[in-house]
Amino acid sequence: MLFFENDYSEGAHELVLEHLARTTREKLPPYGADKYSESAREKIRSACDCPDAEIFFLAGGTQCNQVVIDALLAPYEGAIAAKTGHIALHEAGAIEFTGHKVLELAQENGKLCAATIRTYLQDFYNDTSHEHMVKPGLVYLSHPTEYGTLYSAQELAEISTVCKDYDLKLYLDGARLGYALACQDSDMTLPILAKYCDAFYIGGTKVGALCGEAVVFPQKAPKHFLTRIKQHGALFAKGRVVGVQFDALFTDGLYEKLGRHAMEKAEKLKAALREKKYRFFLDSPTNQIFIVMDNERLKEIGKQVRYSFWEKFDKNNTVIRFATSWATGEDDLQALIALL
Amino acid sequence: MLFFENDYSEGAHELVLEHLARTTREKLPPYGADKYSESAREKIRSACDCPDAEIFFLAGGTQCNQVVIDALLAPYEGAIAAKTGHIALHEAGAIEFTGHKVLELAQENGKLCAATIRTYLQDFYNDTSHEHMVKPGLVYLSHPTEYGTLYSAQELAEISTVCKDYDLKLYLDGARLGYALACQDSDMTLPILAKYCDAFYIGGTKVGALCGEAVVFPQKAPKHFLTRIKQHGALFAKGRVVGVQFDALFTDGLYEKLGRHAMEKAEKLKAALREKKYRFFLDSPTNQIFIVMDNERLKEIGKQVRYSFWEKFDKNNTVIRFATSWATGEDDLQALIALL
Amino acid sequence: MLFFENDYSEGAHELVLEHLARTTREKLPPYGADKYSESAREKIRSACDCPDAEIFFLAGGTQCNQVVIDALLAPYEGAIAAKTGHIALHEAGAIEFTGHKVLELAQENGKLCAATIRTYLQDFYNDTSHEHMVKPGLVYLSHPTEYGTLYSAQELAEISTVCKDYDLKLYLDGARLGYALACQDSDMTLPILAKYCDAFYIGGTKVGALCGEAVVFPQKAPKHFLTRIKQHGALFAKGRVVGVQFDALFTDGLYEKLGRHAMEKAEKLKAALREKKYRFFLDSPTNQIFIVMDNERLKEIGKQVRYSFWEKFDKNNTVIRFATSWATGEDDLQALIALL
Amino acid sequence: MLFFENDYSEGAHELVLEHLARTTREKLPPYGADKYSESAREKIRSACDCPDAEIFFLAGGTQCNQVVIDALLAPYEGAIAAKTGHIALHEAGAIEFTGHKVLELAQENGKLCAATIRTYLQDFYNDTSHEHMVKPGLVYLSHPTEYGTLYSAQELAEISTVCKDYDLKLYLDGARLGYALACQDSDMTLPILAKYCDAFYIGGTKVGALCGEAVVFPQKAPKHFLTRIKQHGALFAKGRVVGVQFDALFTDGLYEKLGRHAMEKAEKLKAALREKKYRFFLDSPTNQIFIVMDNERLKEIGKQVRYSFWEKFDKNNTVIRFATSWATGEDDLQALIALL
Repeated sequence: MLFFENDYSEGAHELVLEHLARTTREKLPPYGADKYSESAREKIRSACDCPDAEIFFLAGGTQCNQVVIDALLAPYEGAIAAKTGHIALHEAGAIEFTGHKVLELAQENGKLCAATIRTYLQDFYNDTSHEHMVKPGLVYLSHPTEYGTLYSAQELAEISTVCKDYDLKLYLDGARLGYALACQDSDMTLPILAKYCDAFYIGGTKVGALCGEAVVFPQKAPKHFLTRIKQHGALFAKGRVVGVQFDALFTDGLYEKLGRHAMEKAEKLKAALREKKYRFFLDSPTNQIFIVMDNERLKEIGKQVRYSFWEKFDKNNTVIRFATSWATGEDDLQALIALL
Repeated sequence: MLFFENDYSEGAHELVLEHLARTTREKLPPYGADKYSESAREKIRSACDCPDAEIFFLAGGTQCNQVVIDALLAPYEGAIAAKTGHIALHEAGAIEFTGHKVLELAQENGKLCAATIRTYLQDFYNDTSHEHMVKPGLVYLSHPTEYGTLYSAQELAEISTVCKDYDLKLYLDGARLGYALACQDSDMTLPILAKYCDAFYIGGTKVGALCGEAVVFPQKAPKHFLTRIKQHGALFAKGRVVGVQFDALFTDGLYEKLGRHAMEKAEKLKAALREKKYRFFLDSPTNQIFIVMDNERLKEIGKQVRYSFWEKFDKNNTVIRFATSWATGEDDLQALIALL
Repeated sequence: MLFFENDYSEGAHELVLEHLARTTREKLPPYGADKYSESAREKIRSACDCPDAEIFFLAGGTQCNQVVIDALLAPYEGAIAAKTGHIALHEAGAIEFTGHKVLELAQENGKLCAATIRTYLQDFYNDTSHEHMVKPGLVYLSHPTEYGTLYSAQELAEISTVCKDYDLKLYLDGARLGYALACQDSDMTLPILAKYCDAFYIGGTKVGALCGEAVVFPQKAPKHFLTRIKQHGALFAKGRVVGVQFDALFTDGLYEKLGRHAMEKAEKLKAALREKKYRFFLDSPTNQIFIVMDNERLKEIGKQVRYSFWEKFDKNNTVIRFATSWATGEDDLQALIALL
Repeated sequence: MLFFENDYSEGAHELVLEHLARTTREKLPPYGADKYSESAREKIRSACDCPDAEIFFLAGGTQCNQVVIDALLAPYEGAIAAKTGHIALHEAGAIEFTGHKVLELAQENGKLCAATIRTYLQDFYNDTSHEHMVKPGLVYLSHPTEYGTLYSAQELAEISTVCKDYDLKLYLDGARLGYALACQDSDMTLPILAKYCDAFYIGGTKVGALCGEAVVFPQKAPKHFLTRIKQHGALFAKGRVVGVQFDALFTDGLYEKLGRHAMEKAEKLKAALREKKYRFFLDSPTNQIFIVMDNERLKEIGKQVRYSFWEKFDKNNTVIRFATSWATGEDDLQALIALL
């Protein structure tokens, strides 16, 4: 069976595991105060060109979204997101669990645009009953989006301007950030993210780590953020668990290499699909590839490949997703291409 | 510097790391549905003599307490705990964060007793205004307690009886369960826990794992428990992260061996302390050792050993804690003994 | 200045106030256990043809929605509502505050339809990742809706069938129920509501009371509902405050009379508007009347009448709302008509 | 039957009801923006000698405590209260419902003292693991306390000093404030409360109103407080409901007169009890009187008087509470005295 279902089917990259093994008997202070976590932070600060960034390591993406959004918002504020955003749809209400409404806006290919947000905010403040409504306090973006699409630096700058105009925080979910940064057609970089966002996270779980994400506050973390992490049940006693992994990922460009690896496989797969005249559901520049496939054909293929069901396209066709990852092997890729 | 500050200063045991490394390129389904998680569950069921137990793997202890207690309680119920219980004191209000009051009762050496709980419940239901009070819905025990003390099987049975009489759930926090089970003077076993508790967790973080705990529901998990884990931001995409570790820990008795290792070191240390006429603050049968030390002496010792400050004893003396762990080396132990 | 801005500009009807005054020195038990609250409950049970209904009196509409929805839902469930529903838009996130997501569906003139709900539920359960999504647990309807529109008995029955098919609760917000029941073209009655809903509330605040709503559970209230009211900060020490008012409202058909009064005024106003060729934004059968008005004309009228701004219609026109109420005087009505 | 069970057995004072009746047909803006609410605010500001105070009207005491404490605290902070405080015991966990822990301290006769609070705070900040604990953010006092006892101006000043030293808010629950202010031996005044507290509420429900309390922020209300009230489900559409009542209560000294009335009756009752050699459980200077009564005697008395059971004293005796109120009649009082 071939696996192109998602980008979190494997464990961790060997260099990550080796760093964990090499350091395992060292006695280190708990709760993220260890030297490897600090080393990882220093490397990330440097990669972000942001020497004062405050950085915390959490276990997973939904946890990052929940803890960070809850900490950035006042209790009466909500988070603006695309209707298709992960926090709006696929986190079992983790944001609402902390008391905050997700304010869902229209999207295009998974992306919010500055004009949509601005119109929403204008309408909100023009509404004379807005004191009886949920005050928008933050914009949530995912990059890549749930559809594999990307924001340009210019688009992010525009959204940032709207946020500043209306005193909103800007937060970016980088679960698959490694694949975005490795995308040739994208001009987005870590320093640009650090320039425009109040917070973002660099995804490890989907890019070579066993688990863990690095939350970056380019300016300043919310007050008593460690206590808030604990209050959410999200503080690792052994902070090293994630710190050591990110220390490995940000050594010798491993994180970038893993991103490029997935992108190379994805480019090959897209080229093959194009050649074979498959219909693309949308034009995703990253490692998630959405195609429209005949149901009969799909049934056949499903016997040999695991893919992700996305949605019904019409009576006879289905939208499916293939994902490559940092671990996708060339043999598997060629086998998939041969099969299609 | 010698480290006897806590039992989570090291990473994971080598066999745990090797199992992670060996399986890392295997493509596995997410969210705990992988074969290693299932294998670990099967081994734990067997160790608990409880073939129908439902088992979930979470990242850490506070997270287990938060997610499980929230799921076991009705929204208007609270959790009874010792005043010194971890959820009462050292989890930054993680239980209250989910809307539940911690109902704090008097303790002795960290332990609750059945009679205290029964009296509390009788008083509660005799109070004519109890509909205006937080309904007790669960008893929280830690085993070992925060003071290293243990419940006997008989004590647990008695508390269970009170719980049944008043329709309360019984939940046990086993962050250091490995050390309790390895204690020679204790008659507590996993099957006994499974017999009396509605839920308990087997701690990995403090007993040889990088991270992770195994939550055991001997009868049945709360409805939609996976969704509730997700809602709390606590669901690992790569469920294997903890599943593989517990699969290793419950292979060839590793979990027991690690517990015994710590206990042997602890017994040696206690013997040495007794011989040197140190004053014990309380009689802890497990790997946490509490002694009263002269402040001047402590200042000297603190230059070479990291210990845990517990509390002021009087003007001239301080209560400190030494902890041994699955990773405590004999050389370090002898060095500490020599120093004392 | 004429007031047609809303239906809660006046205090209480004189018969309500007199009942409060007449009984004010009587010494009564607290928390709703008094004889007037019980008398009111008995009268409401009778009006609903539902002798076993459990009835509670709360202070206001948002409070009812928050307390009842929170009590009917499991903690991991959300409430389906029209995008234009009061809980979705104008309650400052009171539902999310209790941890539940409002699942917003498309509406027509403020109404949800059974087919829309069914399709949503089918899609939800067909989605293989639905365990990672908010489980729909309840349907929220408002009757009249925020647009003054009404459900027919048949429409309610159909929605009830969907709810039963998917094990959802059905809850109806009757803030303006008095006006719905008094509408000649509507076949909805209190017994029909009691037949199909798991809970609904009969609005007092907007129909002749100083404050207060009667929450009706036709079958059974959620467990420990009094405690949950208290936990939400919503329990009146003097339960009589609302009980006495509803006792008056349900004596000699006062509630119905007040509803009819508003509807008669509304019918006259609609007839006049039709005659004067005003454009109706939508066809509301109740006491809220939505018309499209030229901005210049509106500016003039605004000098003498308070109306409710609804939304911009186009560059030159605005949608406004006039509302009649139980207290609308004939003189004021004629003055408004003369002005238009 | 005589009623001395509590001070909320009657409805509202006649002058309050008359003001409601007199104004009932006036068309007023909603949500507390009406002229009577504003007039009431102005009178309260004047009584507090605090011209810039921001004042809001809510429905009941638990609601005030929940909304105000939630708004004054950061999400990771808890509220210090006496173990016997209303929020700690008798509000069904309304504070925890909003995510905040109640940090319960030892009390004497229902009162907290500055030294106890200071010691707690010193210990907290000396505890090296305090980042893992609930940060104390506010001190909750009730005045009178649940035992009818009072703080002196000096005691309040001392507690205020501790709060300032540790950056805590000071909040006072004045459910029975009218009786405290009318107590001859007390030097506490509204201006002194306004000087030291960050917020307090003036109780109406127990002092002559049908319902309602006035929340006073002497300096400044928390940001977006109206929205937070709404979010808690606590905003009256007809803000006049409470505003008109407080306008009456603060006209011609009615609030003071009602307080004095209850205190005169209480003093007479206490004198009679003293004369008859009853044993006082504690020395309460206000309208709540706690006596120890022989169980046999109590059974007899209970046939003719409703009292409040407080607690078992010993095998043969019980602590009961008699409460006088603004509505206690002289005939009833004499009948009670004759009976005792």
